[in-house]
Amino acid sequence: MHAYRTHTCGALRASDAGQTARLSGWVHRKRDHGGLLFIDLRDHYGITQCVFPAGSEVFQAAEAVRPESVITVTGEVVLREAGTVNDKLPTGAIELRVKALEVQSSAEVLPIQVAGDQEFPEDLRLRYRFLDLRREKQHRNMMLRAGVIASIRRRMIEQGFTEFQTPILTASSPEGARDFLVPSRNHPGTFYALPQAPQQFKQLAMVAGFDRYFQIAPCFRDEASRADRSPGEFYQLDFEMSFVTQEDVFAALEPVMQGIFEEFGQGRKVTQAPFPRIPYDAAMLHYGSDKPDLRNPLRITDVTEQFRDSGFGLFARVAAAGGMVRAIPAPGAAGNPRGFFDKLNEWARAEGARGLGYIQFAAEGPKGPIAKNLEADRVEAIRAACGLNPGDAVFFAAGNREETPKFAGKVRTKLGEELGLIAQDEFRFCWIVDFPMYERNEETGQIDFSHNPFSMPQGGLEALNSVDPLEIKAFQYDIVCNGIELSSGAIRNHRPDIMVRAFEIAGYSAETVEERFGGMLNAFRYGAPPHGGSAPGIDRMVMLLADEPNIREVILFPLNQQGEDLMMGAPAPVEPARLKELSIRLDLPPAKGASGPKAS
Amino acid sequence: MHAYRTHTCGALRASDAGQTARLSGWVHRKRDHGGLLFIDLRDHYGITQCVFPAGSEVFQAAEAVRPESVITVTGEVVLREAGTVNDKLPTGAIELRVKALEVQSSAEVLPIQVAGDQEFPEDLRLRYRFLDLRREKQHRNMMLRAGVIASIRRRMIEQGFTEFQTPILTASSPEGARDFLVPSRNHPGTFYALPQAPQQFKQLAMVAGFDRYFQIAPCFRDEASRADRSPGEFYQLDFEMSFVTQEDVFAALEPVMQGIFEEFGQGRKVTQAPFPRIPYDAAMLHYGSDKPDLRNPLRITDVTEQFRDSGFGLFARVAAAGGMVRAIPAPGAAGNPRGFFDKLNEWARAEGARGLGYIQFAAEGPKGPIAKNLEADRVEAIRAACGLNPGDAVFFAAGNREETPKFAGKVRTKLGEELGLIAQDEFRFCWIVDFPMYERNEETGQIDFSHNPFSMPQGGLEALNSVDPLEIKAFQYDIVCNGIELSSGAIRNHRPDIMVRAFEIAGYSAETVEERFGGMLNAFRYGAPPHGGSAPGIDRMVMLLADEPNIREVILFPLNQQGEDLMMGAPAPVEPARLKELSIRLDLPPAKGASGPKAS
Repeated sequence: MHAYRTHTCGALRASDAGQTARLSGWVHRKRDHGGLLFIDLRDHYGITQCVFPAGSEVFQAAEAVRPESVITVTGEVVLREAGTVNDKLPTGAIELRVKALEVQSSAEVLPIQVAGDQEFPEDLRLRYRFLDLRREKQHRNMMLRAGVIASIRRRMIEQGFTEFQTPILTASSPEGARDFLVPSRNHPGTFYALPQAPQQFKQLAMVAGFDRYFQIAPCFRDEASRADRSPGEFYQLDFEMSFVTQEDVFAALEPVMQGIFEEFGQGRKVTQAPFPRIPYDAAMLHYGSDKPDLRNPLRITDVTEQFRDSGFGLFARVAAAGGMVRAIPAPGAAGNPRGFFDKLNEWARAEGARGLGYIQFAAEGPKGPIAKNLEADRVEAIRAACGLNPGDAVFFAAGNREETPKFAGKVRTKLGEELGLIAQDEFRFCWIVDFPMYERNEETGQIDFSHNPFSMPQGGLEALNSVDPLEIKAFQYDIVCNGIELSSGAIRNHRPDIMVRAFEIAGYSAETVEERFGGMLNAFRYGAPPHGGSAPGIDRMVMLLADEPNIREVILFPLNQQGEDLMMGAPAPVEPARLKELSIRLDLPPAKGASGPKAS
Repeated sequence: MHAYRTHTCGALRASDAGQTARLSGWVHRKRDHGGLLFIDLRDHYGITQCVFPAGSEVFQAAEAVRPESVITVTGEVVLREAGTVNDKLPTGAIELRVKALEVQSSAEVLPIQVAGDQEFPEDLRLRYRFLDLRREKQHRNMMLRAGVIASIRRRMIEQGFTEFQTPILTASSPEGARDFLVPSRNHPGTFYALPQAPQQFKQLAMVAGFDRYFQIAPCFRDEASRADRSPGEFYQLDFEMSFVTQEDVFAALEPVMQGIFEEFGQGRKVTQAPFPRIPYDAAMLHYGSDKPDLRNPLRITDVTEQFRDSGFGLFARVAAAGGMVRAIPAPGAAGNPRGFFDKLNEWARAEGARGLGYIQFAAEGPKGPIAKNLEADRVEAIRAACGLNPGDAVFFAAGNREETPKFAGKVRTKLGEELGLIAQDEFRFCWIVDFPMYERNEETGQIDFSHNPFSMPQGGLEALNSVDPLEIKAFQYDIVCNGIELSSGAIRNHRPDIMVRAFEIAGYSAETVEERFGGMLNAFRYGAPPHGGSAPGIDRMVMLLADEPNIREVILFPLNQQGEDLMMGAPAPVEPARLKELSIRLDLPPAKGASGPKAS
């Protein structure tokens, strides 16, 4: 007989009755029932009820063992008596009548409980993560994550992608965020950087001829932590393809995303490929966001013209001043009590707006302060433009061209929630496309890149040379699910001539481009294929599937919000000799609360 | 028609003749044949011959294009004329008669050639790695690596293992090698370390209840580079299992290794599971190494007793002084000319030995200087002990107990090579088991851990309390293939009481153990399962399969031997402001060759 187990704790069934079995696992729960002692023995695979008869030798040993101790039990599999069968447990038809017990590892008194649903502070959970992970939800989340990643890999490989490992000790990248640095011991005064993303390496893999690359890639950004962002490392499904258009990239990713969300979505409805493609301008107009939550059926309409020179002076002046008025429908809300509208008005003021005007399309006709002042034909034009019916209401966001679209988006979200319109149990995907290549920096008045300077401008060199930069779109796209941006992506600019011109428009000299991005530019000079890709965040996908708002709930051993590993004790001081080896020394800021000036 | 391709460059066959096709790829070779211009167009999938008829519009464009430029060609698929069919190329039955050509990316004059077998210096290859990787062998090696890793994953998952990602920004580990450090911005004066291996995390995953973990894990060691070791990062098949004995670990890994080497070994013979288990002591005796190359059939025999008090004074004195004599057979070598034996003697002296004695078992009887002096019955005893036949010879390594076994191993390897005995085209696996738990440090006289202090000692606490430490074996094992150690592994010590005692024997106080390994010890106090695992090196497996002696040949973007990324320019200086943010500053060693003392 095996030293530890003949079966796992999830394996025994009624058909095993009469067999001698050996199980190993953790003491999940102990119950004393009239002389009989019950232990629910738990392992990765399940739970089996073990019975220790009173007066038996093993009874005393079992009584002495604390919860979460690891034990090995040997005994006879017996059918439970009718009435004590547990249908919820796969092993619920049987129990193990224990004849021998060996304690493999005694548990001390636990700092956090494993059995039950008690909540514990996050810092305590992270300090004892090895206990926290034994709990049902945490264990399930980790297995979900592992399942998602394994399935992504299988699906990508089936589509002809090849996984490569790109360097983790590498050069500082020209992208936005802050790198983590690693001092080089052999090259004093120099540093490696951890990759913010394998962006340059995946492009170089395309230049090297590997057609379809992917990687479940660890990425590192030294940024502040947020609920949906780990303070240190995160994983993305990094992929890139050669000889493709934007539509080819979409066609490659959509079946993977749809497949994953159907496989692990537990019956929740998933957008069927092809996912909607929404131009950036349309997204900002109709959803007030480039990350629209399409579970919310509301669509925003521009009604600036309906208010221009109208009797409703406030909005007429907005229109005259070059601003805009956006209408957000509230289906079925016309009959809501005054308090509903007042509460939304207060919410809007808390959000920094002047207020939230509205029209109620009551059965007896349009109602409310705006309807009173606005010409009837204009009220009717608004109703028609927004597709409203009697019984519906409409709210208005009015103001400058910069903030109004986004505020309208907030109103849309708020109304969706207040009116209970957001579809539950659905994953609604879309692509946002046609991002502007450039934008005007409001502070400097200069033309800046809007998003990714390495995207191919639509229209190529000709567009750069002949079109107003602010009108140029990029072959750049985001994939969004339920209002969460899973990834940006782009068809890349693989032509040095177009890149130099694109940067010139944003105020960079050819020399600067060469100096900062010479590595990539140089590679593009020896035959680069047209290529593009994207990199959906793995952690965010698992968060969506697990319905967890906190990214740390889907990471095995996460850093806390302060970037600390409380279990292993990182980061930590190191011996001065180690720093000396690395040709660095500490340069600490003055101690907080130190009195008097620091001696220099 | 797709903008870039209707087919890949490996797709077209005779059955496609008559179709219009579009291909994109790199200009691999250009040939001018009597007015016709041929371009071999290459992509990831293959090569297709494209023909540009003289006088056509595309002829001139094709003539102008340099090798490795990326072009898109559209034309008619035509059958090649009989006699020009290329059977070695899957597309060799057809060619593309080009009607339109578009240059996607012009290549400048190449620093290294892609077509052909020319050799280039490694530094040049690494600087232009994106070109180097286009070459056939490099491309094939990378695809092999990717295939191996994907297959490992599939096989591990099929065996019920789950892949988890363990942290990369973590705490300094108590293991041997030097960590890479990452300064923390938010916690001035402290550092993260990159993991040398996820050893502690995988053990914590077991303590957390995840039964069978694996990971294709990036590992980082700030060590000098060797041919078989990258200077920065490397990958291992890290795995760990709960409730297992050593044999369970072997049974889990063997089918994966056998399967991988059979799948990717191109017909080379692979040891069938179960792999031989060789105790450490036997390996040192019979192979003179704990990494025996079993393709070499020679086995060493101890013949110290045959020489004790014998007529061959040199070896008799060795035996009397507590040394040893080891015999290494040389089958069929008795008749070799004197020069063969002289050359080996010279080799032995170059290796630091006094010489290499031998006996020739010639048809007419034993020959050579030793046979002359050694009693005939002793000569016969040696022959019998070594299983030698007429026509064979035997060599002797004699000396102290420390160096002689290893030198005998070198002789075994040398004879295997000289006599052409090493089986080619085979992968011979074995496990080395029963490593000693402790050894005596020759310098200090103290008892040290031989290998891994965290392994479970055989016999547990009782052995530690009652057996001579130097006699205690550990549940520790290596897996070796063709003389290359792929991994160490162990059944871990999961019991704090046994761990404290094991360290006490090696001279560590309980307090020191607590201080240095408190994280793990603490976890083991809340119910730890018996567990064990191993971590075969991925890079080494691929090196064996690709038959590449240099690890950089199996890594996509390797650092060079000096730990530099010549393509991306890493490591590199960073701005002082960045260091200030990290609360460090440079502390450079004095410049080499600087004259005079450095001002302080």
